[in-house]
Amino acid sequence: MIKGRTVSPVRVSKGISADRLIREFEKSGVMGAGRIARATNILEKAIRDKCTLFMGFAGAMVPGGMKQVVIDMLRAGWVDVLVSTGANLTHDLVEALGFHHYQGSPDIDDRLLNKKRIDRIYDSFMPDDVYPALEDFTQRVFPTMPEQMNIREFLWELGKAMPRKLPSILRTCYEHKIPLFCPAISDSGIGLQVWNYIQQHKLEVSAFDDLKEILDIAWTSKKACVLYIGGGVPKNYIQQAMQLSPKAASYGVQITMDRPEPGGSSGAVLREGISWGKMNSNAEFVDVICDATIALPLIVAGLKSRLG
Amino acid sequence: MIKGRTVSPVRVSKGISADRLIREFEKSGVMGAGRIARATNILEKAIRDKCTLFMGFAGAMVPGGMKQVVIDMLRAGWVDVLVSTGANLTHDLVEALGFHHYQGSPDIDDRLLNKKRIDRIYDSFMPDDVYPALEDFTQRVFPTMPEQMNIREFLWELGKAMPRKLPSILRTCYEHKIPLFCPAISDSGIGLQVWNYIQQHKLEVSAFDDLKEILDIAWTSKKACVLYIGGGVPKNYIQQAMQLSPKAASYGVQITMDRPEPGGSSGAVLREGISWGKMNSNAEFVDVICDATIALPLIVAGLKSRLG
Amino acid sequence: MIKGRTVSPVRVSKGISADRLIREFEKSGVMGAGRIARATNILEKAIRDKCTLFMGFAGAMVPGGMKQVVIDMLRAGWVDVLVSTGANLTHDLVEALGFHHYQGSPDIDDRLLNKKRIDRIYDSFMPDDVYPALEDFTQRVFPTMPEQMNIREFLWELGKAMPRKLPSILRTCYEHKIPLFCPAISDSGIGLQVWNYIQQHKLEVSAFDDLKEILDIAWTSKKACVLYIGGGVPKNYIQQAMQLSPKAASYGVQITMDRPEPGGSSGAVLREGISWGKMNSNAEFVDVICDATIALPLIVAGLKSRLG
Amino acid sequence: MIKGRTVSPVRVSKGISADRLIREFEKSGVMGAGRIARATNILEKAIRDKCTLFMGFAGAMVPGGMKQVVIDMLRAGWVDVLVSTGANLTHDLVEALGFHHYQGSPDIDDRLLNKKRIDRIYDSFMPDDVYPALEDFTQRVFPTMPEQMNIREFLWELGKAMPRKLPSILRTCYEHKIPLFCPAISDSGIGLQVWNYIQQHKLEVSAFDDLKEILDIAWTSKKACVLYIGGGVPKNYIQQAMQLSPKAASYGVQITMDRPEPGGSSGAVLREGISWGKMNSNAEFVDVICDATIALPLIVAGLKSRLG
Repeated sequence: MIKGRTVSPVRVSKGISADRLIREFEKSGVMGAGRIARATNILEKAIRDKCTLFMGFAGAMVPGGMKQVVIDMLRAGWVDVLVSTGANLTHDLVEALGFHHYQGSPDIDDRLLNKKRIDRIYDSFMPDDVYPALEDFTQRVFPTMPEQMNIREFLWELGKAMPRKLPSILRTCYEHKIPLFCPAISDSGIGLQVWNYIQQHKLEVSAFDDLKEILDIAWTSKKACVLYIGGGVPKNYIQQAMQLSPKAASYGVQITMDRPEPGGSSGAVLREGISWGKMNSNAEFVDVICDATIALPLIVAGLKSRLG
Repeated sequence: MIKGRTVSPVRVSKGISADRLIREFEKSGVMGAGRIARATNILEKAIRDKCTLFMGFAGAMVPGGMKQVVIDMLRAGWVDVLVSTGANLTHDLVEALGFHHYQGSPDIDDRLLNKKRIDRIYDSFMPDDVYPALEDFTQRVFPTMPEQMNIREFLWELGKAMPRKLPSILRTCYEHKIPLFCPAISDSGIGLQVWNYIQQHKLEVSAFDDLKEILDIAWTSKKACVLYIGGGVPKNYIQQAMQLSPKAASYGVQITMDRPEPGGSSGAVLREGISWGKMNSNAEFVDVICDATIALPLIVAGLKSRLG
Repeated sequence: MIKGRTVSPVRVSKGISADRLIREFEKSGVMGAGRIARATNILEKAIRDKCTLFMGFAGAMVPGGMKQVVIDMLRAGWVDVLVSTGANLTHDLVEALGFHHYQGSPDIDDRLLNKKRIDRIYDSFMPDDVYPALEDFTQRVFPTMPEQMNIREFLWELGKAMPRKLPSILRTCYEHKIPLFCPAISDSGIGLQVWNYIQQHKLEVSAFDDLKEILDIAWTSKKACVLYIGGGVPKNYIQQAMQLSPKAASYGVQITMDRPEPGGSSGAVLREGISWGKMNSNAEFVDVICDATIALPLIVAGLKSRLG
Repeated sequence: MIKGRTVSPVRVSKGISADRLIREFEKSGVMGAGRIARATNILEKAIRDKCTLFMGFAGAMVPGGMKQVVIDMLRAGWVDVLVSTGANLTHDLVEALGFHHYQGSPDIDDRLLNKKRIDRIYDSFMPDDVYPALEDFTQRVFPTMPEQMNIREFLWELGKAMPRKLPSILRTCYEHKIPLFCPAISDSGIGLQVWNYIQQHKLEVSAFDDLKEILDIAWTSKKACVLYIGGGVPKNYIQQAMQLSPKAASYGVQITMDRPEPGGSSGAVLREGISWGKMNSNAEFVDVICDATIALPLIVAGLKSRLG
């Protein structure tokens, strides 16, 4: 039977819960709404199914206000492996040190911002004076770390040293012993602080050593689920681990605004992963073409309601 | 002061309402989430402010399950003028005749669908046998209409003739006397039925006559709000009416996935309209870059909770 | 055999011709470059094959400097039917009256432009004083036209009245007797001038009457090729004609930056048309995901070199 | 004066050269065409001006047939620093070992490809049997390398060991002593081979050590130009180097299909970099919104014609 279920019109009522709205999206079943519903269902199933969940975390998510949503996911035990860009971890550290991002506009004169020493991330503004604070903190903390580490160990050390007062992704990963990977950590504000430090001190961080760790987790997972917020290295790094795992991913959700046609990994549909053996031929997966600051909290609202 | 309010992390709780989620988006204030919040606020304000609300309605919204959401908006008295593509009205008529769209997939072999006589609208499927039913209905109804009409009159006549059993945008506009425009009505399944009919009968529909009506409404509006679901003719037709109105639009919300850089009207940011005098220099407006099947029901959920 | 030809690296040499560059793209055969090559090949074949070529013309192509490229295509006899937005025809008329578009920036303050009475089309600026000139011209010309026409006749009348000094799409279509359709003509500056005129004069233009003409051309075409520059009504209007033609389109090229996932007609891939019977099951077609101001002149350069 | 030069219609003639076409684009000056022209002018100027040119290289460019174009740029001495994804280097190595990518389709059943052991990169196919060859080569070559290196040194060592028979980006960088960076090298097929090797052998590659090198180059550059093919780590890594350089970038060209609105670095407009001090306040720069497999060869054709 080619035709699926009927597309039932989405019904919205006063005071409707986010989860109920997603159920309405499921009744429609098509276009962006349908994909939000499928993503929520797939993640619910994967979490109930005790899958090892690998989450790729790219894009301006912390400056975009998504920090707490991710921390909630980590604390709930939904995420087993987090792979992040260096930028998100740097912004996470910045906020944990008591600094803020500010609501701004993309239409402002960037020369003016430069004079006022404000760094722009689309419409989120960060005062440039976070950098001295970042330096203070890291140069105080780095000497307490082992002299030889891999990147995952380095990030846990950083998490351990993070202030407890303010919540952070780095500290949450450390506390919950969630492996946190960041292959391109040198490409970040944190990386710059390491560069600063190693001019005069010893801190050897291996580029390849923790690759073994994520591959081992992938290899020994009974069942894997991948969740990609944006593309970039985080997605590709998990995809590569899936390629080497015997069963590949059984569940997959991707939230992205990138297009598939130019051919890059970030915009590639999850289905493409089947050819590589990154995604299982029988996997359940969905590509959500949506700004992740809209889709992720909505999906998490659904998951919280369903999983308690 | 360049920096706005701090970006507060979005917090999601179990059972959170859609409206509360939008309030959380407002606290964040940035990126896609922030724009959903601003859009809801702007529409709330415009409706409370008794603005004349012009809604442009393009894209595969009825096959995407958005019919009821729009009907609710019309019934609530929020929308004063609706400008639609011919396609959405045709799909609306199809559903009002008792037919359905079905959940499908964009990855299917379209040659197979063709053999099975199923028409694909991305992942929404429509059986081709709606056409005979469309013909039956229209050829029965057209003779009851005046021989000379403008397009708005024609659409109200169609709405009047629509079955009452099943809700439809066409009938709702007729019943609530909401002017419904569709400049490119000949570019639709309904248009094809008129062509079919006028081979042997008389039905003169003027291409320009109802332009006066929308311009008059724009001209006499104390305050105008524009809401664009997608771009195309519906957006541009309203923009043109705003250009000729003395005050231009005071509020504006646009939900689109089109890009501004290629220069077309569909992807143009609302700010561009200020140069033309389509948008007031002091207007409040926001461009929501999001699949409308996600953004519209979410925003409407917020509005229903706020406006009762 | 699943694998096609090898992807040969594109080679660029000093002084390389545009057509040779496209041949290099063909050797690569993949991604955007490969699609440019396929588009050129398909159009070359369709033109040599004496197909009836239907061209849809949407987006800010005239303000984007594409007027002459289109006029060349019309004069070369490549295009048999042109379907345009009203905006492109209005901008064409504006330039034919001796006015210009100007190079600008999307980052400018639109309130300043509004004060200076300059209308912005992304980064193309049009002085607002074209409107009095437009009014002068049309109000002088409309009285010379028949009182009853369909839109295609109206556009040929307009073309006939156009100044000969400066080249225009409108005049070229009239001179070469190329049927020019614009279903949403009321949604344009030209449309506004008609509205202006019919306040006090008689000019009856039928909304549906010329639908018969395009359907007849489609019906009687031995073989059809569709070429879509952007989406909107022009694309959909031709697609609808193809749906009613016995053989559907045998060749298709689409140049667009819109995405398929939201489900609208503008971003829909050509393959989707097979399900509807708009595109032949054996058709050769390609979707070029590219800004048309880049892709169209490049492809036309290839065609000129090949077709003389 | 707000208005710039007039938008002159692009004129295309039989046999027109790619460079002449770009000159025509310059006359138009707007939309995508205008941006291609500005990009070519900026790069021409930067190269003539002896700028230090930093090129970021992301996206499926080698599978997309762009290898030779990049090698030509490197050989011509235009590029002073190359920052790449690991994927592009892996595909470069694969082709240098005599393997090929093949022309395919994105619409194929990926389960079939998986059975046939063919890996899909959008519409470019790679036989999975490259992996044993990759292993043979690397496991033979790794033992010849120093046991301690940074990533840049590792990549030059790899380049040194590359077969000379077939051209490669890796070998060209080595031969021309062009610093090649790849911060996320562990996220690639090459990275997997290192992981494989270090199970039993010693090969210590530092994650942070070569950061000093790129920062030193940025710091000592008299004038810098950035050229971004896609976003990801390559772009961000160069942006970060520019942030620490005293003068920031004076010229910038970005070719991308990513959008700015979601806020990520990949889609961010170059102007945003001014706020951070990554782009000079007086810099000349342009964002080209285009598939890089179309835009890059076209621009390089222009540069070759102009720079000889």
